[in-house]
Amino acid sequence: MNKVVIFGVGLIGGSFALALKKAGAVGSIVGMDRSPAYLARALERGIIDVIGGTRAAASPAGADLAAGAAAASDAMAEALHGADLVLLAAPVAQTEAILSAIAPHLQAGTVVTDAGSTKSDVVVAARRALGGKIAQFVPGHPIAGRETNGPDAAIDHLYAGKKCVLTALDENAAEDIDRVAAAWRACGAIIHRLTPQEHDKVFAAVSHLPHLLAYALVDDIANKPHADLLFQYAASGFRDFTRIAGSSPEMWRDISLANQSALLTELDAYLAQLTGLRARLAAGDGAGLERVYSNAQSARHQWITAIEAAEAPPSHE
Amino acid sequence: MNKVVIFGVGLIGGSFALALKKAGAVGSIVGMDRSPAYLARALERGIIDVIGGTRAAASPAGADLAAGAAAASDAMAEALHGADLVLLAAPVAQTEAILSAIAPHLQAGTVVTDAGSTKSDVVVAARRALGGKIAQFVPGHPIAGRETNGPDAAIDHLYAGKKCVLTALDENAAEDIDRVAAAWRACGAIIHRLTPQEHDKVFAAVSHLPHLLAYALVDDIANKPHADLLFQYAASGFRDFTRIAGSSPEMWRDISLANQSALLTELDAYLAQLTGLRARLAAGDGAGLERVYSNAQSARHQWITAIEAAEAPPSHE
Repeated sequence: MNKVVIFGVGLIGGSFALALKKAGAVGSIVGMDRSPAYLARALERGIIDVIGGTRAAASPAGADLAAGAAAASDAMAEALHGADLVLLAAPVAQTEAILSAIAPHLQAGTVVTDAGSTKSDVVVAARRALGGKIAQFVPGHPIAGRETNGPDAAIDHLYAGKKCVLTALDENAAEDIDRVAAAWRACGAIIHRLTPQEHDKVFAAVSHLPHLLAYALVDDIANKPHADLLFQYAASGFRDFTRIAGSSPEMWRDISLANQSALLTELDAYLAQLTGLRARLAAGDGAGLERVYSNAQSARHQWITAIEAAEAPPSHE
Repeated sequence: MNKVVIFGVGLIGGSFALALKKAGAVGSIVGMDRSPAYLARALERGIIDVIGGTRAAASPAGADLAAGAAAASDAMAEALHGADLVLLAAPVAQTEAILSAIAPHLQAGTVVTDAGSTKSDVVVAARRALGGKIAQFVPGHPIAGRETNGPDAAIDHLYAGKKCVLTALDENAAEDIDRVAAAWRACGAIIHRLTPQEHDKVFAAVSHLPHLLAYALVDDIANKPHADLLFQYAASGFRDFTRIAGSSPEMWRDISLANQSALLTELDAYLAQLTGLRARLAAGDGAGLERVYSNAQSARHQWITAIEAAEAPPSHE
């Protein structure tokens, strides 16, 4: 690819850029972000080659509104001109606004994808924003992360050996899907395909719910009067259990709302499970508790064994 | 110390033995375990120097009962003869039975301690089992672990830089507490002191509840009809969140029941917290969700920062 445009030059977008560059899979990368500091830092680190503009420029205050909007529109047109691929790597709640700003300037040869952790809502937003250009949008979700954010957290091997789920639309041309898949493969990712609805159910269970549970536990403890004493004795088990509560609150607020329905379903199932465990505990039902614990331990062991076997070769599909 | 006797030669007892040996803080170590295979493996790895006997020998079946019991009693007397320190590192539910078997043979110069994850119930059991010898028992809890069990999981640095909480009794002599503290310090641990009740409240919140929550999540997912699909997309966040669900189900059944009251209190607080979060999610209250997530993120960040500062020097109290 000659030109790639990335909206959001933090951990996810920045790591995509670094991996593409390391693989020699891109000519130049244009960065767009609402944070001028992030853009400056991304340029400094060599994550991007060109600052395309801050999205804040699209909504200036006061009398300069019209002039500011025109300038932002010009910047967007220039950024998108001749782009092979556009990646949206901003919090999912911003997807529609960014796609709406892109739409008038999107050329026929450009494919747009995203890295959002939810997909059904992204597809709805994309249809609204892109209208007749919806075929150019191939939704995606790389399954990788760290508990730190921003361009300084970006690393060139974040996606190596990790899954990237594409939830292609009926309107997508095969070669456009292939362009997105090839970019992620160049980053070392393994491509999987799901429908947007399948994707959202799966990740509500194995990702969104655990995040909510970890945030809930740390907040619960932090609000107790003897929180300091409690934290003093929290050890490595607590640290790992709550690692995901170090993630961006804004990002996870957006994900929670974007996948509200599937997340509520999973949360209700988990509340029922906890209520059952509470009853066993209150009844002193050791055998009942042990059955749940044993089933969990062996299921996790099988999963880890399968994951390790699958991830052993350097890269395959 | 010349002679140390360890009941339970798995991860906790075995790591204590290896650390004492590495520090040159012990003459010889006698191992006792209900598993002959564990004892053989512990001897083979140099964790223990002498096999003191299997506790199973204390309850043989059929006609040999009286002879078996007498032989077990002789073995116990020999194992304990001249011991400076006895460590109980078996699942907490076995504490009373082991202390009862020890009691008749416990010499005046021997101090007994344990590594149980709960303390109030251990103190009750010890009072019942040891009677007039209760002053010789100094309850303890090293805050360290791994998700694997058994003598093969034992390592000589498991306790390096980790806390060990002693919940001394009014009856304990200062020099007996010091003997236990010195042994753990030789293993690299940092000694803290709490009452048994304080200890159990603290660990219900920061350890026992998270274990229950992690087991509950994995069991919940494993029981779904599409569990295979779900596990396929579980990633590093899920892996860390559920690491503690790889722990011994028997051990955590025992801990859950032993600390039933404090654990129920924490579980109820957490259920109330989750119910509140569910209401915010159902109402689409993004600001409410973000407040909880942000509070959790910043509390965790402060905690990690404090932990890292405290653990930076090699060892201190």
